[in-house]
Amino acid sequence: MAGTLYLIPTPLGDEDSALAAIPEQVRQLVAGLDSFVVEHPKTARRHLKQLGLSRPLQEIQLAELNEHTAATAVSALLDPLLEGKDIGLMSEAGCPAVADPGAELVRLAHQHGIRVVPLAGPSSILLALMASGLNGQSFAFHGYLPVDKAERSKRIKELEAESLRLKRTQIFIETPYRNRRLLDDLQAACKPNTLVTVAVDLTLSTQSIHTRTVGEWKKQSPDLDKRPAIFLLLSPS
Amino acid sequence: MAGTLYLIPTPLGDEDSALAAIPEQVRQLVAGLDSFVVEHPKTARRHLKQLGLSRPLQEIQLAELNEHTAATAVSALLDPLLEGKDIGLMSEAGCPAVADPGAELVRLAHQHGIRVVPLAGPSSILLALMASGLNGQSFAFHGYLPVDKAERSKRIKELEAESLRLKRTQIFIETPYRNRRLLDDLQAACKPNTLVTVAVDLTLSTQSIHTRTVGEWKKQSPDLDKRPAIFLLLSPS
Repeated sequence: MAGTLYLIPTPLGDEDSALAAIPEQVRQLVAGLDSFVVEHPKTARRHLKQLGLSRPLQEIQLAELNEHTAATAVSALLDPLLEGKDIGLMSEAGCPAVADPGAELVRLAHQHGIRVVPLAGPSSILLALMASGLNGQSFAFHGYLPVDKAERSKRIKELEAESLRLKRTQIFIETPYRNRRLLDDLQAACKPNTLVTVAVDLTLSTQSIHTRTVGEWKKQSPDLDKRPAIFLLLSPS
Repeated sequence: MAGTLYLIPTPLGDEDSALAAIPEQVRQLVAGLDSFVVEHPKTARRHLKQLGLSRPLQEIQLAELNEHTAATAVSALLDPLLEGKDIGLMSEAGCPAVADPGAELVRLAHQHGIRVVPLAGPSSILLALMASGLNGQSFAFHGYLPVDKAERSKRIKELEAESLRLKRTQIFIETPYRNRRLLDDLQAACKPNTLVTVAVDLTLSTQSIHTRTVGEWKKQSPDLDKRPAIFLLLSPS
């Protein structure tokens, strides 16, 4: 009988408040597993310690799955599952297989009829959506916007127009050091009454979540530098 | 100083396994609150007991916010917050303000500069996405599809085409007694190699999550009747 692939959420930071967002069942499950598929072993070891793993780390098997993993190598990661061993899949932060390479492993697991069990935990996308007050009946996550200034401005305007037409909340992210530039670009491209949420440092003690119109944001200058952020946009009818 | 609006996740069912998906910090927070905004008081009382609230329920204030609440009445729900009292917002199941009327209250809270704090917990949409193995870098949640057969078929084909074009995972829901019909309609409308995930009874002991091609689903006949389900679709390139 094949093992189970458990999807293990990890804290969104090193603080106690980030750890408090992890349900106790995750710790209990982690304590019983000795085989994990992880994005980067260094972060994974820190997460395992954070989650209270008491066994020596050298007894734990950590297989790597990240952007450098060859597509042909992913299926070999299933071998322990096919041999009946349970595995935990973890990402760098938050819920695995949502915006990371783990999804490929999950898809292969389904192809082999392996049981997949997701565990609830913190997701910056979902926490930001909840706290935004924007439309949660219709929303889309777009990942990163284009880096090129003209393309990015065009894309923002497209997202804004679609948001108005479909009453859809648009969600996207940026690398932390470019956050401020993204907010500037949103202010330049969007109508003054378009709502923009900026959710920063989610689950950390420095967490800050604000929904304001573009017109209001122009009067604010939040410190976003190098802080993980999620951006949401909704053009009100 | 104004109070804080806490967004409280609730279990996706009455079972212990559903309760295990709630972080301990949620119980601790609930124990300290005496004022909640809820969709339906009856369910809310059950949730509060489930979450271990030890105080007598008659000491707890439950204000209603649901589809019958007049838009003009929503802002009055902020009054305790403006008077400095903390409030917990709860939905019928899972994460509040994602696919329920609570979002309106959250938006108003931002307008009044009230602090909004979302707590991590189970979201059927996110759990289904994690466990689907489909693309988590780009996805959209569409709520319910049209009920009319022809319109629904057209909509499914649109979602499938958009999924192929944008590599976007499409997520939608159905009322439990129409689940089987939706799966039939997906089989009728989609190409045989389109991937469809059906995630049923999330976090319950009867949980079942499968990703299969439409061609494979045609050979299966899962029992979906009256079970809460999430559907996901991705047309592979």
